[in-house]
Amino acid sequence: MDLKSLIRDIPDFPKPGIIFKDITPILKSPEAIQYCIDALAAPHMNQSIDYVVGIESRGFLFGPAIAAKLGAGFIPVRKRGKLPHRTRVVNYDLEYGSDSLEIHEDAIEANSRLLLTDDLLATGGTMKATIELVTPFSPHIVGVSLLVELAFLNGSAQLDNIPIHSLVQY
Amino acid sequence: MDLKSLIRDIPDFPKPGIIFKDITPILKSPEAIQYCIDALAAPHMNQSIDYVVGIESRGFLFGPAIAAKLGAGFIPVRKRGKLPHRTRVVNYDLEYGSDSLEIHEDAIEANSRLLLTDDLLATGGTMKATIELVTPFSPHIVGVSLLVELAFLNGSAQLDNIPIHSLVQY
Repeated sequence: MDLKSLIRDIPDFPKPGIIFKDITPILKSPEAIQYCIDALAAPHMNQSIDYVVGIESRGFLFGPAIAAKLGAGFIPVRKRGKLPHRTRVVNYDLEYGSDSLEIHEDAIEANSRLLLTDDLLATGGTMKATIELVTPFSPHIVGVSLLVELAFLNGSAQLDNIPIHSLVQY
Repeated sequence: MDLKSLIRDIPDFPKPGIIFKDITPILKSPEAIQYCIDALAAPHMNQSIDYVVGIESRGFLFGPAIAAKLGAGFIPVRKRGKLPHRTRVVNYDLEYGSDSLEIHEDAIEANSRLLLTDDLLATGGTMKATIELVTPFSPHIVGVSLLVELAFLNGSAQLDNIPIHSLVQY
């Protein structure tokens, strides 16, 4: 499926000079949603994934559907102050400023097999923070699953050689 | 499936006196995720839904999966400043303060059949704002789909007699 034809370039969002990749036309297409769920899950079907870890907000869009397809659970990573139970926090720099991410401190059993997911990898700061967030659980991070990878920003260099699978690359 | 056993009460979150219903144990369970996707979609399988409209952030967790199951598209409603293209905005009061929601102004064709979804209905303010947000598209709002309904808060009274389907009621 030609997903690139369903990704809309929005110039100067969220700030001047950035060309934002708008995936809402993918979401709007029933065929594209189903294709993305299937294609994002496919490489991981026989990897005994225990949990798909998805990053708020757009990592929530496909994460639970991928988890269901893999017979895995879904663990949310959220912005600060959103998770109700006790959390651990990581502060990080990102392309457009700085931010914090949290995970419930009882979210994941030791030695679980994890698939990390988000809609888009840019400079890799958010995904790197997520790796840092889950590391104390002593997980086996099997892969990183992405709808879109901005390969020209070389975010993969931040990800400790964890295998990356993305459906669209720029 | 006994979903209530997978909902954790968190007292005094996000503020004193509120008992927050934490659905992360549902998300963590592979069986519960699959059950919720199937059970949320089931009543709408033959209703020719064009689009599932989901509210950031937790409405993103099941919305796209429900859409895929229904052969529908997914339309995100987001907090202010998150959607990259031109938007329409609705300001509203909610249980814990006030907020704004946005939708892309070209998101939905006139006369589309919509299913609105979120994880939880409390006082109904957020869902009411979403109805207001989509109304200019002249839609047929077929239903509101919820994981959890806090029926004691009577949020359904805000929803213009649109049929509500929830998996768990308190």
